[in-house]
Amino acid sequence: MKFVIIGGDAAGMSAASRARRLYPDLDITVLEQSFDVSYSACSMPYNIADPDTPMDTLVVRTAQQFIDNHNINLLTGHKATAIHRDARQVAGKTIQGNVFCFEYDKLLIATGAVPTLPDLPGRELLMPLKQLEQGRQIKAAIQNKGVKKACILGMGYIALEMCEALTDLGIHVTMVKPGPLLLPWLPRDMAQIVQDELNKQKVILHLGTKIQRLEPKNRGAAIICDNITLDADLVIGATGVAPCSELARDAALALSVSDAVHVDQYLRTSDPNIFAAGDCGDAIHVVTGQNVWIPLALRANRAGWAVADNLFKENNPLQGVAGTAVFKVFNLAVARSGLTFSQAKDAGFDPVENLITSWSRVKWQPGAAKIYVNMVGDKKTGKLLGAQMVGIDGVAHRINAVAVALHAGMSVAAFIQTDLAYAPPFSPTWDPLLTAAIQLEKKL
Amino acid sequence: MKFVIIGGDAAGMSAASRARRLYPDLDITVLEQSFDVSYSACSMPYNIADPDTPMDTLVVRTAQQFIDNHNINLLTGHKATAIHRDARQVAGKTIQGNVFCFEYDKLLIATGAVPTLPDLPGRELLMPLKQLEQGRQIKAAIQNKGVKKACILGMGYIALEMCEALTDLGIHVTMVKPGPLLLPWLPRDMAQIVQDELNKQKVILHLGTKIQRLEPKNRGAAIICDNITLDADLVIGATGVAPCSELARDAALALSVSDAVHVDQYLRTSDPNIFAAGDCGDAIHVVTGQNVWIPLALRANRAGWAVADNLFKENNPLQGVAGTAVFKVFNLAVARSGLTFSQAKDAGFDPVENLITSWSRVKWQPGAAKIYVNMVGDKKTGKLLGAQMVGIDGVAHRINAVAVALHAGMSVAAFIQTDLAYAPPFSPTWDPLLTAAIQLEKKL
Repeated sequence: MKFVIIGGDAAGMSAASRARRLYPDLDITVLEQSFDVSYSACSMPYNIADPDTPMDTLVVRTAQQFIDNHNINLLTGHKATAIHRDARQVAGKTIQGNVFCFEYDKLLIATGAVPTLPDLPGRELLMPLKQLEQGRQIKAAIQNKGVKKACILGMGYIALEMCEALTDLGIHVTMVKPGPLLLPWLPRDMAQIVQDELNKQKVILHLGTKIQRLEPKNRGAAIICDNITLDADLVIGATGVAPCSELARDAALALSVSDAVHVDQYLRTSDPNIFAAGDCGDAIHVVTGQNVWIPLALRANRAGWAVADNLFKENNPLQGVAGTAVFKVFNLAVARSGLTFSQAKDAGFDPVENLITSWSRVKWQPGAAKIYVNMVGDKKTGKLLGAQMVGIDGVAHRINAVAVALHAGMSVAAFIQTDLAYAPPFSPTWDPLLTAAIQLEKKL
Repeated sequence: MKFVIIGGDAAGMSAASRARRLYPDLDITVLEQSFDVSYSACSMPYNIADPDTPMDTLVVRTAQQFIDNHNINLLTGHKATAIHRDARQVAGKTIQGNVFCFEYDKLLIATGAVPTLPDLPGRELLMPLKQLEQGRQIKAAIQNKGVKKACILGMGYIALEMCEALTDLGIHVTMVKPGPLLLPWLPRDMAQIVQDELNKQKVILHLGTKIQRLEPKNRGAAIICDNITLDADLVIGATGVAPCSELARDAALALSVSDAVHVDQYLRTSDPNIFAAGDCGDAIHVVTGQNVWIPLALRANRAGWAVADNLFKENNPLQGVAGTAVFKVFNLAVARSGLTFSQAKDAGFDPVENLITSWSRVKWQPGAAKIYVNMVGDKKTGKLLGAQMVGIDGVAHRINAVAVALHAGMSVAAFIQTDLAYAPPFSPTWDPLLTAAIQLEKKL
């Protein structure tokens, strides 16, 4: 039996490794267009901030290790260009220009996502950050060009992580986006805390600033906007990502939200012999029950594993995602799980939200800091729908209690009753999440 | 209507304050035997470690503030000695020796718990730590006697927190207990990590050491044990606590596990006009459904509130406790929620446990440290039963995800699927809890 995997990153290599363990005789081929497999993509901004550590330390396993130690036919520089479902073949071309064609019994599309750079004149001057090679290029540019000023298009979490990394290197960062709001999914009072932190770090934000074009200038580029022209030695394009679903679309497989490849809970596409996993595929949201596209690393790994489990039998049905995410921006952590108020509204709930301020620990304990929790519940059913948190201390892991509650379909009233840990060095008697739930319940 | 409360600490004053808000005309009397009400008892070890901050900063509100601002008839120095249920009266004696008698329509027993000091000759030389006045006495002893060496009887979490506080003050600490194991509820490999940390901090542990008697010696005491005689300028008695349930027992109210006052989910004792809340009362364990006595601050506050809610109507049924707790001992945090393996066995489950080692953050991130998670599940039902964690970093809030899962009655398999937060500065891709659950599930 032949198992072919298109894409050798988190989902693809998780599936390959687990399939190898589960089925020692399976013929496993991975087609990866780049020359990198199995690396920690989310660590790239932190590596860029650290000139002394080569980017390649982020490689968990090399292609050669998969070949030698796992008996996986891992082919880098192999770009799949078409899936022929009738013939059960994947066709493509190597980086050297040779065509190839592989037959499959089971196929996994793990093509990930690509940065969606704005369609501007001069966009070739933008450096995106998604693949390891792009990380290497940014790092090389910083080291070789003596970058003093950088401009980042976009203000999402990759943009903010890169902003911190570049600032840590002594580079002056300007950020630009056409939309008027920083982190529009956060309540304004919480987004303001992030904005204040960015101001404190001397990052310049140009919100509501439409970019017309980029032009080469000195070592870098001029960024010509409606009302202002900026210049920078390095311009990072971090304006979002889109699923790589062209292969699936061209093979007439069903697509879903945001054109992600639609899969069932066994990760099967509309063709039962073709699976999809990772940033190219959709998922069910545990709160809404609707399809969503939330490309995050844990899901990619989990889905890759599950594909191997489900390859020949329905062994491992995946539950949905809660959309839990956290990122660091300078001294702050920003976290979320579940729905925001406006997402809840769009999903047909009758949402109520409430923002509280509390302390991360008992106030006089070392490290205690203010913590902000916005919690969202449904007026009709009393259900907990989501939460967002911002703070210097104690944000990242607290959000997990919310995530578990969302998976369990808990009401706000039930969450209030949960027995959360208390000791003065770690939490007030009433954990900020409990305070948030108590205050929210009053409005429900 | 007259609401009388015996005990003016966490549960009693929570009930009093909330009852005042809910029922403006209610006649509320609180009888407190000491002269302190509403203070942060759990913060006492941290305050003792800080000579510059008076113990009285731990007082949240003084008795006078309750009287002046909340119209609560708060009587300190009033020790209740009998409940006459037929006459609906509480009798007692003031510290000056005057007898008193109060009639009630509703009564709350919020008498807390007392240290259970070992019944040894010379036990009057032991200083326990439960009430604020005891905290003041220990602090004064340290300051006035120039304590260089301290001995702590007991090695539970109060003992360990005091050990850290005294060590921080430059006092050399020796700890003694008759039992052979440090933290017997932890798997041995995890307890060893705590023991290593204590060794590193130059704390001397005498496990399996039976104490015969104490004798005055110089400024302090000699602690005469079976095989060794220790001496210290200060001897702390931290050998556990027991519920103060004599009043309830003498009034023929039903008692429960460990002689705690038995209450239903509305905090009513076996007499519907008498409530009990806080460290003197029992609770239902959410995992076993059985009565337990787990005296912790959050429950005391929560139960106090609920008593007020339920005073005249069944408004606020309390769910059970998960027994979630965390404490700090030097650089380590130790946390638990739910059942240990042996508790699970005793409760009739067919438990399996598994201990994993992981990282608190992505390994190369600043602050990343090893984290140890022991997870317990039930072989018969697949249910998650509990977890224990030890580590330098990222322990305290992670345990809350387990607590919520226990409240929701989640299976280990369902927990594996939860969408926990990931970003390199805060967690590995697979949170240590997920790794623990995945490994445990293999054994179930």
